[in-house]
Amino acid sequence: MSYALRLRNLRHMMAEQQIQAVLLTDRFSKYYIARLYSASGYVLITQESQTLLVDGRYMAECREQSPEFDIRPLSEPYGLAHHLADIHQQYPWSSLATDAAQLSHQAWNTLAAQCDFPLQHWDTCGLRLTKQQDEIELIRNAARIADRALSSVMPFIQPGISEKALADQIEMAVRQAGGSKTSFDTVVVSGLRGALPHGRPTEKLLSHGELVTIDFGAVFGHYCSDITRTFALGQVSFELEKIYHTVLRAQQTAREAVRPGISCQELDWLARDIIDDAGYGEYFSHHLGHGLGLDVHEAPSLRTDNPQRLEPGMVITIEPGVYIPGIGGARIEDDVLVTEDGFELLTNSPREWKDICL
Amino acid sequence: MSYALRLRNLRHMMAEQQIQAVLLTDRFSKYYIARLYSASGYVLITQESQTLLVDGRYMAECREQSPEFDIRPLSEPYGLAHHLADIHQQYPWSSLATDAAQLSHQAWNTLAAQCDFPLQHWDTCGLRLTKQQDEIELIRNAARIADRALSSVMPFIQPGISEKALADQIEMAVRQAGGSKTSFDTVVVSGLRGALPHGRPTEKLLSHGELVTIDFGAVFGHYCSDITRTFALGQVSFELEKIYHTVLRAQQTAREAVRPGISCQELDWLARDIIDDAGYGEYFSHHLGHGLGLDVHEAPSLRTDNPQRLEPGMVITIEPGVYIPGIGGARIEDDVLVTEDGFELLTNSPREWKDICL
Repeated sequence: MSYALRLRNLRHMMAEQQIQAVLLTDRFSKYYIARLYSASGYVLITQESQTLLVDGRYMAECREQSPEFDIRPLSEPYGLAHHLADIHQQYPWSSLATDAAQLSHQAWNTLAAQCDFPLQHWDTCGLRLTKQQDEIELIRNAARIADRALSSVMPFIQPGISEKALADQIEMAVRQAGGSKTSFDTVVVSGLRGALPHGRPTEKLLSHGELVTIDFGAVFGHYCSDITRTFALGQVSFELEKIYHTVLRAQQTAREAVRPGISCQELDWLARDIIDDAGYGEYFSHHLGHGLGLDVHEAPSLRTDNPQRLEPGMVITIEPGVYIPGIGGARIEDDVLVTEDGFELLTNSPREWKDICL
Repeated sequence: MSYALRLRNLRHMMAEQQIQAVLLTDRFSKYYIARLYSASGYVLITQESQTLLVDGRYMAECREQSPEFDIRPLSEPYGLAHHLADIHQQYPWSSLATDAAQLSHQAWNTLAAQCDFPLQHWDTCGLRLTKQQDEIELIRNAARIADRALSSVMPFIQPGISEKALADQIEMAVRQAGGSKTSFDTVVVSGLRGALPHGRPTEKLLSHGELVTIDFGAVFGHYCSDITRTFALGQVSFELEKIYHTVLRAQQTAREAVRPGISCQELDWLARDIIDDAGYGEYFSHHLGHGLGLDVHEAPSLRTDNPQRLEPGMVITIEPGVYIPGIGGARIEDDVLVTEDGFELLTNSPREWKDICL
């Protein structure tokens, strides 16, 4: 494990940015730096100290998992601000950096009012933006589990099964393939419901002549994968077939353009232009993709207004889609690692047009 | 469905508190008032208007599900503040109320900077504190599903199964019993791991002479249940048996004291005193329970510092536990509805000492 390296990297970033103390509040950053996977609790890092602040429920676990951290018990009235004042006495800082996107306005104001030093915003996104080798290996595994799970549920994708029953099969398949669970609520939408990009599975039965879109992911060692495939259930309309092939071309073009130095917005436009040219521009109603790691949606966001350039070690999804009310829709999504000289596909389930009923 | 009634109640609260406009930002409040079950999007309510603000992914769904709402598309650069300015022109308000606990400090500041009117904090907890009949029926169903799921996995709870495999069986059982999924990551901890109140299931096998604690819930129609049971795997130490019976006595005492007018802190102390008297006070390291509804943890919090009094229609958990590092632990949890003259137990799985191996 590379926790020591991560902590070293964080301290290096802090030194470069002249930040003396960082308070981590979100589940993913806390796990990344200190192995605490919980919405509650805090991690405080200075150049000389590393502290975990947790309530009674997590004390035993933290002592076992994070022996190199000082563990301090949060209990009323001896709460966060009290401990911070203590630590501040020993390792003084002029201001405390914490992510304003990861703390509620109320929590920020409460803490600011209780502290003798100012809070400053510090964006934690940069911390987990490029992945280390051990992280890549966990995501690679999560992606393989998703591929295996999809392959094992293929026999169930047939007219007559409900969206909900198919989603249940996927949950079980992910766990049987070695995942701890799915990485978000599985999307299964068929027929006209294919026009709902985030539709929840219902009791609706899959029927002949429809497309079905399945979007799910696996969690392995706390890291996420995310894959979408769209299948035909027998003969579908010419329009639906055209939508599928447009999405596939857009997805392939963007996917194969992934390399260090290309910007997020360039990639988004590559896919969007193809969908625009086919006349479906207004129906590609979301961004091209997102970063992937401990969180199933993290930086970088692949959108038309993000000039950020890709770097080796970033892991992203490429997932264009077209959704037309009254007609249906299609989406195809893969997980892609940015390598030194291009990309590596982490999800590898077949993408070509597939009629399940043939 | 009672969405119209909920909206009427909200407007009544607003009038009473002299609030002219409310912006709902969290998934649960948005669903409660406007059927939008998503972390993204906003709901704006004034006395004369009701508006859903969502991005392209949710337009079709919202139009179908929430026909009585104005649906406005969020798209860059025509974002939230822009729409609010528009609506404000038509239905002026002096300040906009939104929950500072449900918006990040960054999002609050960004919005405040873009608006010509001030934002004010408004606590949304009160909105969903007492449940309507249709909500109670959904929670009752979610609780029944949890009872049924537990009953159906009992044959799997045996020495030799791993905590992880048992958690997987519970996920499937919840879905097979009619739940859409489990309401949080299932806890299965056995033996010494029983000392971790929030332990994640591992590959550790359940073994003879241990206690195993199982904490899970079911989601039904977006409403949650939450149940915990602890079982013995054959003969266990006298200490573990004493812990179990102490927890059971504390749980029963608190559970049977539930009635309108009793305060959250009184209930917590009822259970805590029993555990204290048995010598385990320092090992009951969390609160007695929490409210239950759309969110698996909502108001009211049953803790020693909460003087709030229970009212008919509140649904709470009662879940004392004892956790001793190096020895193990036990927790017993039920979901309880506060009725006009007392309580109704929503979860009904047996609570008496059970040796699985007998």
